[in-house]
Amino acid sequence: MMIVMKPEASEAEIAAVAERVEAAGCSAHISRGRQLTVIGAIGERERVQSLGLDGAPGVDHLVPILKPYKLASAQFRAGERSQFEIGERLVGDGQFTLIAGPCTVESRSGTLAVAETVAAGGASMLRGGAYKPRTSPYSFQGLGQEGLRLLQEANELTGLPIVTELIDARDVEDVVEVADVIQIGARNMQNYPLLSEVGRTDRAVLLKRGLSATLEELLMAAEYVLKEGNERVLLCERGIRTHESAYRFTLDLLAIPALQELSHLPVIVDPSHAPGRRDWVESMSLAAAAAGADGIIVEVHDDPDSAVCDGPQAIPAASFDEYAERVRSVAAIAGREVSAPAGMLV
Amino acid sequence: MMIVMKPEASEAEIAAVAERVEAAGCSAHISRGRQLTVIGAIGERERVQSLGLDGAPGVDHLVPILKPYKLASAQFRAGERSQFEIGERLVGDGQFTLIAGPCTVESRSGTLAVAETVAAGGASMLRGGAYKPRTSPYSFQGLGQEGLRLLQEANELTGLPIVTELIDARDVEDVVEVADVIQIGARNMQNYPLLSEVGRTDRAVLLKRGLSATLEELLMAAEYVLKEGNERVLLCERGIRTHESAYRFTLDLLAIPALQELSHLPVIVDPSHAPGRRDWVESMSLAAAAAGADGIIVEVHDDPDSAVCDGPQAIPAASFDEYAERVRSVAAIAGREVSAPAGMLV
Amino acid sequence: MMIVMKPEASEAEIAAVAERVEAAGCSAHISRGRQLTVIGAIGERERVQSLGLDGAPGVDHLVPILKPYKLASAQFRAGERSQFEIGERLVGDGQFTLIAGPCTVESRSGTLAVAETVAAGGASMLRGGAYKPRTSPYSFQGLGQEGLRLLQEANELTGLPIVTELIDARDVEDVVEVADVIQIGARNMQNYPLLSEVGRTDRAVLLKRGLSATLEELLMAAEYVLKEGNERVLLCERGIRTHESAYRFTLDLLAIPALQELSHLPVIVDPSHAPGRRDWVESMSLAAAAAGADGIIVEVHDDPDSAVCDGPQAIPAASFDEYAERVRSVAAIAGREVSAPAGMLV
Amino acid sequence: MMIVMKPEASEAEIAAVAERVEAAGCSAHISRGRQLTVIGAIGERERVQSLGLDGAPGVDHLVPILKPYKLASAQFRAGERSQFEIGERLVGDGQFTLIAGPCTVESRSGTLAVAETVAAGGASMLRGGAYKPRTSPYSFQGLGQEGLRLLQEANELTGLPIVTELIDARDVEDVVEVADVIQIGARNMQNYPLLSEVGRTDRAVLLKRGLSATLEELLMAAEYVLKEGNERVLLCERGIRTHESAYRFTLDLLAIPALQELSHLPVIVDPSHAPGRRDWVESMSLAAAAAGADGIIVEVHDDPDSAVCDGPQAIPAASFDEYAERVRSVAAIAGREVSAPAGMLV
Repeated sequence: MMIVMKPEASEAEIAAVAERVEAAGCSAHISRGRQLTVIGAIGERERVQSLGLDGAPGVDHLVPILKPYKLASAQFRAGERSQFEIGERLVGDGQFTLIAGPCTVESRSGTLAVAETVAAGGASMLRGGAYKPRTSPYSFQGLGQEGLRLLQEANELTGLPIVTELIDARDVEDVVEVADVIQIGARNMQNYPLLSEVGRTDRAVLLKRGLSATLEELLMAAEYVLKEGNERVLLCERGIRTHESAYRFTLDLLAIPALQELSHLPVIVDPSHAPGRRDWVESMSLAAAAAGADGIIVEVHDDPDSAVCDGPQAIPAASFDEYAERVRSVAAIAGREVSAPAGMLV
Repeated sequence: MMIVMKPEASEAEIAAVAERVEAAGCSAHISRGRQLTVIGAIGERERVQSLGLDGAPGVDHLVPILKPYKLASAQFRAGERSQFEIGERLVGDGQFTLIAGPCTVESRSGTLAVAETVAAGGASMLRGGAYKPRTSPYSFQGLGQEGLRLLQEANELTGLPIVTELIDARDVEDVVEVADVIQIGARNMQNYPLLSEVGRTDRAVLLKRGLSATLEELLMAAEYVLKEGNERVLLCERGIRTHESAYRFTLDLLAIPALQELSHLPVIVDPSHAPGRRDWVESMSLAAAAAGADGIIVEVHDDPDSAVCDGPQAIPAASFDEYAERVRSVAAIAGREVSAPAGMLV
Repeated sequence: MMIVMKPEASEAEIAAVAERVEAAGCSAHISRGRQLTVIGAIGERERVQSLGLDGAPGVDHLVPILKPYKLASAQFRAGERSQFEIGERLVGDGQFTLIAGPCTVESRSGTLAVAETVAAGGASMLRGGAYKPRTSPYSFQGLGQEGLRLLQEANELTGLPIVTELIDARDVEDVVEVADVIQIGARNMQNYPLLSEVGRTDRAVLLKRGLSATLEELLMAAEYVLKEGNERVLLCERGIRTHESAYRFTLDLLAIPALQELSHLPVIVDPSHAPGRRDWVESMSLAAAAAGADGIIVEVHDDPDSAVCDGPQAIPAASFDEYAERVRSVAAIAGREVSAPAGMLV
Repeated sequence: MMIVMKPEASEAEIAAVAERVEAAGCSAHISRGRQLTVIGAIGERERVQSLGLDGAPGVDHLVPILKPYKLASAQFRAGERSQFEIGERLVGDGQFTLIAGPCTVESRSGTLAVAETVAAGGASMLRGGAYKPRTSPYSFQGLGQEGLRLLQEANELTGLPIVTELIDARDVEDVVEVADVIQIGARNMQNYPLLSEVGRTDRAVLLKRGLSATLEELLMAAEYVLKEGNERVLLCERGIRTHESAYRFTLDLLAIPALQELSHLPVIVDPSHAPGRRDWVESMSLAAAAAGADGIIVEVHDDPDSAVCDGPQAIPAASFDEYAERVRSVAAIAGREVSAPAGMLV
C-alpha cells in the first residue's frame, strides 16, 4: 500500500503515519519527492486498510499496490495459462469450449432433442438449468431434482459433460451427482458460503461475473473457490449493467484480454443474456471468439417461441450447426480450436 | 404489456402477433395510430414476455405497463404508508429510526460500551455484525455465534432491539434467537433462497439494495420476503456503483422519495459505506434525513482507529451524542421524529 | 406517448388528463384494461412531455412510443442501409472501411511514413488529428493549421481520403479544405452548434458516441447533422464509461447490431481508446469486425513509444500489414469486404 | 507517477524502464519491496504517461500520484476556501447562494413575474436560459438575444444578478453584456474552446459537471477557465448517469464534501434536473443544503404546467417563499447563511 501525503503535510504528520503503520506490524518506507512524500507500507493490504489512514491528518489518499488475489493470479502460475480436463474435454490454453443447451430444463423430449442436436453440431458440453434464480417470486423456478434427472439422461445419451447452476448450498449434494461443471450465477458471485461450498466439491466451477463486479472482485470470488482446493474454475463474462437500456446488459469483451493477463484461468463468454434477443446473439458469439475467449456458453432451444424462460434469446436448434461452424472459423483465426473429447483427438 | 409495432408493419404481421398473444391465454387489444399500431396484451407479464415477441416480424419493441411487484407496491395498501413495531419501537410513517453500532462485533467490552453510548444518545436500535461477507477469503469473517451472544448481552444491558446480518440460510435459527431485525446485505439482495428463508421467520427484515439493483429489483426482492407472510420489511439504500471513484459508492438519495412513492415500506439509509470515510458520513446522514428517509443505519465504534473492519468509516462513540442531535433536528424539518420505545411515548 | 394511469385513478382524474392532452393540440385515446387505464396521446412527443403530466394526479408514468429521430431512423429509408462514396471509396452496406493513422499529427516525416504504410497495407482512409481536445489545459493541443497542411500532403502522396477532428466551429473553413471526413469527438457529441455547422458543409461526418450517451442520443446528435442536409454521417462506437477501471472505457460492441437495426447509417468502431493499450487493440478490432461493424478507425504510429499523445495505444506501423490482413479475414466471415477506391474495384 | 513492476520483472526490465523515464527528462526513483519493485517517476504526469509504459515488459500498472489540476486544487489556496463577490452578493465559504428562476426565458410577463417572486422570497440571483442546448433539433432552442434582453429587464426590476447559459463561443459578447454568471452546461463541460473563451471574460462562471464526468475531470475543466485568469468559478453537481432509470439522473451529493476537500471553489447543486419532477425537487434541495452545499440553482415557473421546456420539474412561483424558508433552515444547521446583497448585510 502506498500512502500519498498531501503536499502541505508536516513532518510531524508524516512521522505519525509511519508510526501507525509500524504499530500495525507493517514496515514503513518513506520516499520524499520534490512536491510530496509517499510512504510505502509493506505488509498485509487488509491490515493497512483497516488503519483508517484515509482522511487522517496530512494523508491525501491511499493506493493499493499488491493485488489482493493470489491463487487466481497470473503470477501464481508464473504466466502459464491453466488447462484442465472436464469429462475428457480439455479446457483453456488454446482450446475453445463450446457449451450449448437450453436455459432451463423444461421437458424430457425437448432436453434430449437439444442435447442430440448440439452434440451433433460439435458442442463440447451441455448446459441446462434445473434450479433457476428468478427476479420474480411468481416466475417458474425450475424443475429441481426432476430437472437434474433429465440432464443425467441427456448425458447418458450424448456423452456431453453437464453444466448446471447451483443456487442454494443445501442442494449441493444433488447437483454434484449430475454436474461436471457447477455454474454460479451472476447474482451469487459474492455469495461466499456458496462459493466455499463448491470449492469443497470435486466438480469444475463456472463462475459468472456479477452485474457490477469489477474484474478484481470476480477474481476474489474465484479465490474463495480456489482456496478450498478446487483448481478447475472457469471465469465467465455475461454482460454488465450500464446506463444503456437498448439491451439488457452491456457485454464487456475487453474483459477477455484483461482477465487473461491478470489470471491463468480460462475465460468463457455468455453471449445470450446481454442482448436478450437471438438475432444479436450470433454477432456477440463471433465477437467473443474473435476477441480470444476460451469458450462460449450459449442458449439453444428446440422451439424457442414456446420456451418457458428466456426463449427470445435462444438460438433455434435447427440453425445450431451453421452457427457452430461460423464460431469455429472465427475462433481459429484467434488461435483456438473447439475442444472435443480427449478420445476423439487421437 | 404494450407491443409497439414498427411503422411499416403489415396487416399480416399485426394479425400474427395478436394471434400469438391470444394463443398464450392473454387478450390482445389493437390500437391504430396515425403513424403506428400498438397492441395491448392483457394478461400475465411473464407470459407475454416469454412469447419472444421482441424481434418478431413487424414488432418494434415491448413496453411493460403493470409493475411486477404486488405486495410491496403502494397500491397494495391504497397509498397508506406501512408502520409497524419492532421491539416496542414504531418504524415508518412519520417515525425516524436511528440504528447505530459497530460494523462488526469484535470484543465484549467494545460492543457493550458502544451499545451504552448509542442508547444514551437516543438510538432506536443497535446494529452489529456477527457474520460478515468479505470480499477477500483471507479477511476476518466475523465472530459467528460468539458475536451473536455478545449482541444478546448488549440487548439485555440496554434494551435496544438488535439488527444483525444473515449470510447463510443454514444459520437462520441461531440468528433468529438474537435478532429483532435480520439484515440482508447488498451482495445477497438477489439470493432468493435466503430471502424466502427470512420471509418464513417472525423477525423484521432490513433489505439492502444491491450495488447495481434498480428500485424495481429491490422491490422484487422485498416481494420474495413478503410473499412468505413476513410483512415487516425495511428497504435500505446504501450506495450504488457508478463511474465515480472518488468514493466507494454513490449514495443515491433520490431513491428515498422514489421508493416512498412506489412502495408503502419504510426507507432507511446507510450513510457509512458509500463515503467510506467518517468525515463525510455526517454530511450524508443529514442529507438522508433532509430528503425524508424513515431512518438511518450508521456505524459507530468506541475506538475506530483500531477497528478490525471498516474502522475508517465509523463515527467515534465520543461524538455520537452531538451527531444524533443534529440528525434529529434535520429529520424534524423533514417531518419525522426519532422513534423511542412505545412505552416512552406515553 | 402513452400515459399509464394508476390503478386507483378516478374517472375525474382520467378525464382531466385527457382534457389537458387535447388542450395541447394532441388527441387523447383512452384504453381501459382490467387493472388500469392507458391514455394514448397522439401528437408531438415534445408537446406532450412539456405538459408536466409526470406526477399529475392519477398518473403513474409516461411511455414514449415514437422514436424522436426521423432522418436517422431505419424507417426513413424503409429498412435499406445507407451506402455512399467518400473520396471514391464506398462506405456502408457490405463495405468495411479501415481508417488508420496517427492519433495526432506530430511531424512531417512521421505523418508521411505512417500514411504510406497504411496505404500499402490496404487502409481505406487516413486519420490524424490537427486539433486535439485534451483533458488538461497544460497538454499539447495539436499543431492546428500546420497539422492540416501535413495531412493535405499525406493525401497528395497516397490518395487516401483524410479524416480529421473539428473542435471549434470557428475553424470549420480551415478543416473543410483538407478533410474528406470531419470527425466530431465524443466530448462534442452534444455540442449542437458544432453539429449544425458540420451539417452545413459538404464533407462526410464521423460522429463519436459520447461517454455516457445512449444510442438514442447518438442518433439525435446525428439528426442535427442530417437536418442541415448532410446525408453522409458515420456513427462511431468508441467505448462508454462504466464502473470498471481495468481499462479506460468499456467498448460496447452490442451497439453495432443495435444501431444497425435502429438506423440506416454505417457503424464504425474505434478499438484504440477503450483499451488504451496496444496489445488489446487487435483483440477489440477483430471483435468489432466479427460483430458486423461497417469499419474501424484505429491508431497507428511509426514509433509509438515516442508519440506525444496516446502512443501507448497505437499499433506500430511495422505490424500494420499483418494486423490489417487479420481484420479483413474476420470481416469477410461477417460478410464485409474492405473498401478500396471505386477505381480499383473495376 | 508510480510505476508498479510485476513481481516477476527482471533486473533488466527494471533498468530499461528507469532508463526510459530518465530519457524523457524525468528522474526515476527505484524502491524494492519484498514482493515487487516500484519506480517513482518524478516529472510531468503527461510526459510519463506518454511513454507508453503501460503494457511494457515487466510493468504491471501505473499509478498517478500528483493531481493534474493546480489552480483549482485546495492546495493552491493552502486549504482556505474561496469567497468572492458577484453583483454585491458574497459566494462561498459560509454563504449559501440561492439561485432561482425559469429554465427558459419564454415571455416578458412570465420572466418578470418569476423574478419578482424569487427576489421577494430571498433568492440571491436569477437564473434563466436564452440559449438552450436541446437533445432534439426539432425542439425550441430558446429566444436568443430577445431572451437576453428580458433577463436584462428582470435585473433592472429586481437588482438580482443574472445567471444564463452560453452554448456557442460566437455568442459570448452578447451574453457578457447581460450575465453576471455565465453558465456552462453539462454537455459542454469538456468543450475546451468554450471554457477558454469564458475564462477570458470578467464574468463569474457556473460550470456544470458532465453526465459521466469524474470529479477530477470537472476540476480539470475548471482549470481551463482559471488558467485564463478568471478566478470566479462555481462548480455545479446536477446528477450523473447511472443504471437507474426511475429518475432522469442520479444526484450525487457525496460530490459536495469531496469537491470541497479537493478544491477551494464553491460547490452549487442543481436539484431540478435529476428528479425531473417537482415533487422530488424539494427533497433534493433540502438534502443538498444539509450535505453542506454552498448553494442551489433551482427552476421556478409562474405557471409550470404551461412551460415550453422542463415545466414538470419547476417549482411553482406561488410556493417559492415556503420552499426558500425550509432550504434556509436546513442550510443554517449545516452552518451556512443565505447570501444577500452586501448592502443588505449592513
